Amino acid sequence: MTKIEVQETTDTKFNKNWKLCIGSGRLGLALQKEYVDHLKIAQEKIGFDYIRGHGLLHDDVGIYREIEVDGEKRPFYNFTYIDKIFDSYQEIGIRPFVEIGFMPELLASGKDTLFTWKGNITPPNDYGKWSELIKEVVSHFIERYGEAEVEKWPFEIWNEPNLVNFWKDANKEEYFKLYKVTVDAIKEVHSNIQVGGPAICGGTDEWIDDFLHFCEDEDVPVDFVSRHAYTSKQPHKVTPDYYYQDLADNTKMLEEFRKIRGMIDASPYPDLPLHITEYNSSYSPINPVHDTVLNAAYLARILSEGGDYVDSFSYWTFSDVFEERDVPRAQFHGGFGLIAWNDILKPTFHLFSFFNALGEEQLYRDDKTLVTRRKDGTIALVAWNLVTEKGEGFEKELEYTLHVSGDDYFVKRQTVDEGNANPWEVWKQMGRPRFPSKEKVETLKQAAQPFIRTSRTKSENGRIAIKIQLTKNEITLIEFTPIKDETDSYIGLDDSLITSYS
Amino acid sequence: MTKIEVQETTDTKFNKNWKLCIGSGRLGLALQKEYVDHLKIAQEKIGFDYIRGHGLLHDDVGIYREIEVDGEKRPFYNFTYIDKIFDSYQEIGIRPFVEIGFMPELLASGKDTLFTWKGNITPPNDYGKWSELIKEVVSHFIERYGEAEVEKWPFEIWNEPNLVNFWKDANKEEYFKLYKVTVDAIKEVHSNIQVGGPAICGGTDEWIDDFLHFCEDEDVPVDFVSRHAYTSKQPHKVTPDYYYQDLADNTKMLEEFRKIRGMIDASPYPDLPLHITEYNSSYSPINPVHDTVLNAAYLARILSEGGDYVDSFSYWTFSDVFEERDVPRAQFHGGFGLIAWNDILKPTFHLFSFFNALGEEQLYRDDKTLVTRRKDGTIALVAWNLVTEKGEGFEKELEYTLHVSGDDYFVKRQTVDEGNANPWEVWKQMGRPRFPSKEKVETLKQAAQPFIRTSRTKSENGRIAIKIQLTKNEITLIEFTPIKDETDSYIGLDDSLITSYS
Amino acid sequence: MTKIEVQETTDTKFNKNWKLCIGSGRLGLALQKEYVDHLKIAQEKIGFDYIRGHGLLHDDVGIYREIEVDGEKRPFYNFTYIDKIFDSYQEIGIRPFVEIGFMPELLASGKDTLFTWKGNITPPNDYGKWSELIKEVVSHFIERYGEAEVEKWPFEIWNEPNLVNFWKDANKEEYFKLYKVTVDAIKEVHSNIQVGGPAICGGTDEWIDDFLHFCEDEDVPVDFVSRHAYTSKQPHKVTPDYYYQDLADNTKMLEEFRKIRGMIDASPYPDLPLHITEYNSSYSPINPVHDTVLNAAYLARILSEGGDYVDSFSYWTFSDVFEERDVPRAQFHGGFGLIAWNDILKPTFHLFSFFNALGEEQLYRDDKTLVTRRKDGTIALVAWNLVTEKGEGFEKELEYTLHVSGDDYFVKRQTVDEGNANPWEVWKQMGRPRFPSKEKVETLKQAAQPFIRTSRTKSENGRIAIKIQLTKNEITLIEFTPIKDETDSYIGLDDSLITSYS
Amino acid sequence: MTKIEVQETTDTKFNKNWKLCIGSGRLGLALQKEYVDHLKIAQEKIGFDYIRGHGLLHDDVGIYREIEVDGEKRPFYNFTYIDKIFDSYQEIGIRPFVEIGFMPELLASGKDTLFTWKGNITPPNDYGKWSELIKEVVSHFIERYGEAEVEKWPFEIWNEPNLVNFWKDANKEEYFKLYKVTVDAIKEVHSNIQVGGPAICGGTDEWIDDFLHFCEDEDVPVDFVSRHAYTSKQPHKVTPDYYYQDLADNTKMLEEFRKIRGMIDASPYPDLPLHITEYNSSYSPINPVHDTVLNAAYLARILSEGGDYVDSFSYWTFSDVFEERDVPRAQFHGGFGLIAWNDILKPTFHLFSFFNALGEEQLYRDDKTLVTRRKDGTIALVAWNLVTEKGEGFEKELEYTLHVSGDDYFVKRQTVDEGNANPWEVWKQMGRPRFPSKEKVETLKQAAQPFIRTSRTKSENGRIAIKIQLTKNEITLIEFTPIKDETDSYIGLDDSLITSYS
Repeated sequence: MTKIEVQETTDTKFNKNWKLCIGSGRLGLALQKEYVDHLKIAQEKIGFDYIRGHGLLHDDVGIYREIEVDGEKRPFYNFTYIDKIFDSYQEIGIRPFVEIGFMPELLASGKDTLFTWKGNITPPNDYGKWSELIKEVVSHFIERYGEAEVEKWPFEIWNEPNLVNFWKDANKEEYFKLYKVTVDAIKEVHSNIQVGGPAICGGTDEWIDDFLHFCEDEDVPVDFVSRHAYTSKQPHKVTPDYYYQDLADNTKMLEEFRKIRGMIDASPYPDLPLHITEYNSSYSPINPVHDTVLNAAYLARILSEGGDYVDSFSYWTFSDVFEERDVPRAQFHGGFGLIAWNDILKPTFHLFSFFNALGEEQLYRDDKTLVTRRKDGTIALVAWNLVTEKGEGFEKELEYTLHVSGDDYFVKRQTVDEGNANPWEVWKQMGRPRFPSKEKVETLKQAAQPFIRTSRTKSENGRIAIKIQLTKNEITLIEFTPIKDETDSYIGLDDSLITSYS
Repeated sequence: MTKIEVQETTDTKFNKNWKLCIGSGRLGLALQKEYVDHLKIAQEKIGFDYIRGHGLLHDDVGIYREIEVDGEKRPFYNFTYIDKIFDSYQEIGIRPFVEIGFMPELLASGKDTLFTWKGNITPPNDYGKWSELIKEVVSHFIERYGEAEVEKWPFEIWNEPNLVNFWKDANKEEYFKLYKVTVDAIKEVHSNIQVGGPAICGGTDEWIDDFLHFCEDEDVPVDFVSRHAYTSKQPHKVTPDYYYQDLADNTKMLEEFRKIRGMIDASPYPDLPLHITEYNSSYSPINPVHDTVLNAAYLARILSEGGDYVDSFSYWTFSDVFEERDVPRAQFHGGFGLIAWNDILKPTFHLFSFFNALGEEQLYRDDKTLVTRRKDGTIALVAWNLVTEKGEGFEKELEYTLHVSGDDYFVKRQTVDEGNANPWEVWKQMGRPRFPSKEKVETLKQAAQPFIRTSRTKSENGRIAIKIQLTKNEITLIEFTPIKDETDSYIGLDDSLITSYS
Repeated sequence: MTKIEVQETTDTKFNKNWKLCIGSGRLGLALQKEYVDHLKIAQEKIGFDYIRGHGLLHDDVGIYREIEVDGEKRPFYNFTYIDKIFDSYQEIGIRPFVEIGFMPELLASGKDTLFTWKGNITPPNDYGKWSELIKEVVSHFIERYGEAEVEKWPFEIWNEPNLVNFWKDANKEEYFKLYKVTVDAIKEVHSNIQVGGPAICGGTDEWIDDFLHFCEDEDVPVDFVSRHAYTSKQPHKVTPDYYYQDLADNTKMLEEFRKIRGMIDASPYPDLPLHITEYNSSYSPINPVHDTVLNAAYLARILSEGGDYVDSFSYWTFSDVFEERDVPRAQFHGGFGLIAWNDILKPTFHLFSFFNALGEEQLYRDDKTLVTRRKDGTIALVAWNLVTEKGEGFEKELEYTLHVSGDDYFVKRQTVDEGNANPWEVWKQMGRPRFPSKEKVETLKQAAQPFIRTSRTKSENGRIAIKIQLTKNEITLIEFTPIKDETDSYIGLDDSLITSYS
Repeated sequence: MTKIEVQETTDTKFNKNWKLCIGSGRLGLALQKEYVDHLKIAQEKIGFDYIRGHGLLHDDVGIYREIEVDGEKRPFYNFTYIDKIFDSYQEIGIRPFVEIGFMPELLASGKDTLFTWKGNITPPNDYGKWSELIKEVVSHFIERYGEAEVEKWPFEIWNEPNLVNFWKDANKEEYFKLYKVTVDAIKEVHSNIQVGGPAICGGTDEWIDDFLHFCEDEDVPVDFVSRHAYTSKQPHKVTPDYYYQDLADNTKMLEEFRKIRGMIDASPYPDLPLHITEYNSSYSPINPVHDTVLNAAYLARILSEGGDYVDSFSYWTFSDVFEERDVPRAQFHGGFGLIAWNDILKPTFHLFSFFNALGEEQLYRDDKTLVTRRKDGTIALVAWNLVTEKGEGFEKELEYTLHVSGDDYFVKRQTVDEGNANPWEVWKQMGRPRFPSKEKVETLKQAAQPFIRTSRTKSENGRIAIKIQLTKNEITLIEFTPIKDETDSYIGLDDSLITSYS
């Protein structure tokens, strides 16, 4: 039993950095109706500010083409698809966090690609044409959406250039060159547009230092630093359809956030914002952990504390509409998405929507709970019971003492655990139907809703005492709302006159 | 513990008479957006064939008017509103079960009215004009919707003429006169339109006999017999806002159904269909029983068995958009509706949707459960635990042995009881907010969903044994769907490789 | 032929006062789906800031009731309907311009009513209870919508108290008393809420002076002055279904605006805003003029110049969902609405949407045209050819010389006249079907769209010369948008290679 | 002037074969939201029964995959995307006309591909695996959609095997082999499914004979014959973005229809239906003719007479969401679609919607008009003025004498010509913006509506005489609807009392 004493009021702010940005499958998928449907759901229930995905310059979006005129190849810039994509972002109320990459085939210096969809990872074969492309793209965005709008879109140069599968030979100098040429092109079009990098994944964090010194040395603009973070360990089993890994302690990610922040603080650019432009437990889109309640319980502390160190951290990704490892092969397949195919909400979706119910006044926080107050006076807390051991049991009991000013509170508790809001488990019970019928999908949707319990409690001596049980890997949201009781206004009311009621 | 043995297959049909028709607030309310929204919900989740409400000829729908021409009053028939109403029924996919009444003020022979909305209950002051009105109305319907369509609409003459507050002096001879004039007018327009009466409430069932003999003696057309049924007893407390009654045993209603059926069988028209065009527990729209779980548990047996005796029975009503006792004064106010204001589903709504999940092959039935098979092979059962005594406890245990041909079944159980899908209870916890904020409404909607539990079971020796607990006044739907297990098709699958799973 | 020289740029602002507010049928009708549908159309295409209708306190909205407790009557305030109404305004994106009235039956000192829907026009029988009612209503609005929101809602006291049919005996002193009690109640709840009156119609404008002096003398708060304006003359034929009047010159209305403004300027409150809370050609809802093209041509100058004098002027009304003279008896019946039943747009709707396309820089204005520039550089002009004489002909020719900086312009002209966007005329051709079938409604909708002509023009010496013909009572919108010609970017383009093209 | 005498009634039926089927971009595109939006528009306004597109087995739909198990490759069938696609067809109310092709990469015997999207055109590398694939696919369809539904889906084997770019070497024997293996697989799953071929384009029609004799000789099932038809001549200019061709006379297509029908009549299978599974003017998706009014005028006679010879003819295609020649590079680019990007209707769309307004009783037909009667009594005619010569002028005058039984008719005429419903022309005036702003798109949509004119006419001696002018390449729909005049029912009506009306 853990006892938790929660003060009535504090000066601590719980910031909303966790919802600044969300990851997406490659932009070409944003043309799909299912993608749009999922994004609407995410925005309605959570409401991210930005969305970031690969593939702006990939050939399926089709921006860069060439056309032969009088025997000579000329660049041709096609914005048909990207306009449709960004228009739909605008309608849905989210902005692009623009990632510049990968390489259009016609500009590629090599044939190296990654993913089923074959993103080309080689440097430009002609930096002049590349620079032209960037200028055309940025100019088009400004023409279509206006300067004031595009100034709000961060532009991040490339993705994970420190990995050989994302950037030819993980060539650092080549990346810096690409960075310089690209940001020069962007700033030439409009100097207020924010640019940043190096968008590395973990492992070789010296890139951060090198990158910032490069910028200083070469006087290259940089408006933010970006990095990725995944905390799963080396894979211990990999099959065509499955990728299994152990998870490092979730504090490892927080430590990485802090470490990078420290590197920036000590750099020539100590004021730069730090954006974690991707994070998740596992970096594999076929790792079943993403479908589990464990994943939500594991990430809870990161949502709770990550904003202490970084300006944004962007969960990778909002939807299982995703093709890096081929077209999804089953209703549940270990995809990154908060939302599975057929609009089914996963446990981690609810983690985000639970955090979205929190207020900005942080009343209490530890490694298993976060208590806040909303402006409407509601005390909203999230608690979680992360258990990485196998087996049953592991219930945890928490006892909160809330200091309050009101007398009477309505208590609403929502639970996600192995037995509730766990469509993956229900799907297993169904025999794992790969392509479930509409009727089965309906059941999965119903089963994906958090279990809700409500009650009423009175404070005593300015305190509410509440004891809660958490099952293994449960995450729970509890909201205490002051009651304005209108019962007395019902003249003649007497429930005991209803048959069987007292 | 009750043991229930369910055969694998039977020749017994469970008919769908319970969903043939649903009651509605007066037709003028059908212009409201909230009404239309509720009706769409009901049709999407349940899907009634017909809808019946009062007030077709009431002055707010405005069909009958007079206009002065050269100093002389002429009838004027205004179909602006009724067209809008019936058009919207058509779009939503439901047909009117037409009730002829009440009296337009200009045709009324007296000033007696009922309800806040002042329906005039007096006979026509001029039967010739009345007959003209009826012919104009029916002709207009045919012109707008076509003969084939209008032939499917039953026309019921008046409402509860055996009550003095619904028909001046409850004058039987005057009713028969009205009936004759009206059906003659209808049949003159189109002889295939179905007509019926006498639409009485219980208490003076000799009206049925008298009515049928009148039809025979006077050679007046009659295509169906109609009657209402409410099983609550005399009110023991009535206030401006509350009406409290005890409930008679629900078998009383079934007995009434059977009795009237018997009267028709013994009449000169033994083949006439019998429509219960209204029924509910209490006949008062301010009786809190309608908002309770008890109401659902109480009606379960009636839905289960009512169709044995009657061709339809129409729950009064689908929505709390209703004004007989003034504009609803609070979120919950004892209204008849399956759906409360702000699209909140009441327990009885779920009773209907649970029955809607049943199949048409009746495998077993007793006074607390009904077991069926759907065409897709799913065994679907509803069970209920009606308890009319006060106090806690009263759990009931049922043990089913299902004879089945399959091996492996997915089991989905949905529960409505005091603690689940009971927004009335949650609203009480909130302090009974009369006009709840949008946030509170959102909580009530969430809390109005049935609790869902799923599992998987295997048959042994062609039998599934399942034991269930029912809480006081719980209603539950359990569906057993044969599983086609695809688990083996997942190559490399091993859940135990996921951290914390086994 | 009129020659019009339009400068390239000016310092004159064309204000948007014409779209600040729009009139509505009584608030009880706002529950109807058709009303909501029409309002959505109006907001999507025009986008008013406020909406004003009668009947907030009328018994169909049902706010004021009494309930007997222990033999004593107590006030009961029911916000079920008004919440639904104002919630829907909020969703649609429009704010109430609150009109306080008419009298709830239970508070009325007399039985005098007006309109088919019987609004009670008598003073309160108890000013104390009235004051309580007002405080409860305003407090409820603040609780539900927040202080910051309700501060933006003007509260106007009563409607046309200078007319005996709207206020018992048109008793001025009694009105001032009502005004004082009401605004005192409002300001007691929240002093920042804006209040105003006297909401008179024309005819006895000395009320304005008297009202302002009363406020000064008695130190009664007043934040705005309001008045109505209709320019039709005495009716020369009135039947149950028709009301025919001649129209005064439309400058009469502008003069009235100016005159009232002058009265305020000369009053003790020279800075008070002036809101014309109702205006139209005719004040009768069964005057066919409202359905005509003439009505649009007649009002054009008022939209063009009215904002010079008044802070808002509110067209009465946006929709034919309206019941002052009974339920509408035909598709077209002379109703006030910009939108007729079945979502059919009338000519005057297009007048408003044409003005909505204008910019805020006024380049030129006279009695038959208004030329503006939008921020996007488009020159947008409206022209009209008001002809009040009978007979055919009356075409007018206008020749504009626009001074421009660009070379190449796309010209889009939209026309509403007797032959285009005139569903009333088409309906007459159909034989005036009162309750048209869906197919006929579809034709009327199609026929209600403005006729569109497009072309391309080049400037010469910084000038565009354009000559237009206006038919009798035509209104036209012409937009000149600078062209960025991309034709040369189409490599290989040659239209003459398409069969039959050159 | 052409005089046309139209009898009041005939026994001739105008069949609806023209709307049985419509072409589509490759099925993978059906995941896109824009595709779905366009299909909804087409179904709402026209309502085809079937839809046919390439690429069911192409790798972007992703059905055929292999997975390595214990070092061995096993087929894996992935229905995630095709389920989403066919589910959406079902929701929209259209059925697939299934085309079997192209070759999944893993089953391909060669690397030959066509189109930007690289459809593989080679025979299977393993007919056994191919057969398995077909059986799995058909079985899955039946499991998901039911036998009764899938029996209604025709299965056509491959596409244009008589062309070397669609089928390796245009190898006829290999095609017959593919056909046999495929239909045997289909019929093994379910013998009632309809199968057919050879889906050839024109040029080598002996394939039809050979195919049918092959089926007879080898006793291979065949339920229908299919062929394509395009009437444009050899291209005379081809650039990367443009393809220009002259058009053959449109009677050439009708003659082809008749010829193939004759070949079937003379074959061993004289009763087989003939489906033209693709037709259009030009077979190039970058031929501007598709965007023109000419295209509509050209096809009018084919819609009018094609159904005399063939059981269906399927316009290629409903939407410009299409990628055979890359992502569309501009708003208008010569795409096949009835609907251009951004939901803009092309002239040919209206041709189809005009034909959709025709009745099934054919009163008169010649080479420039088709007159019908609908069941509701409306006489509906389409007329067109195809002019393939260059230059202006070419107006045509038609004079109809309609024999009618009614007195009074409402006449509704809709026109599509160079000046109306011609968004391509408006777009040219705008300077051909490749990626138009939302505002420009709005103008294009407005400008894409047919010009509507209405009037009223009386018959004389049972005849209506009407003279119409057709501009060059105009298509027009005229509907004569009998009027039931209600004008006399409006008591007091006198339009001349409205200012300026007479």
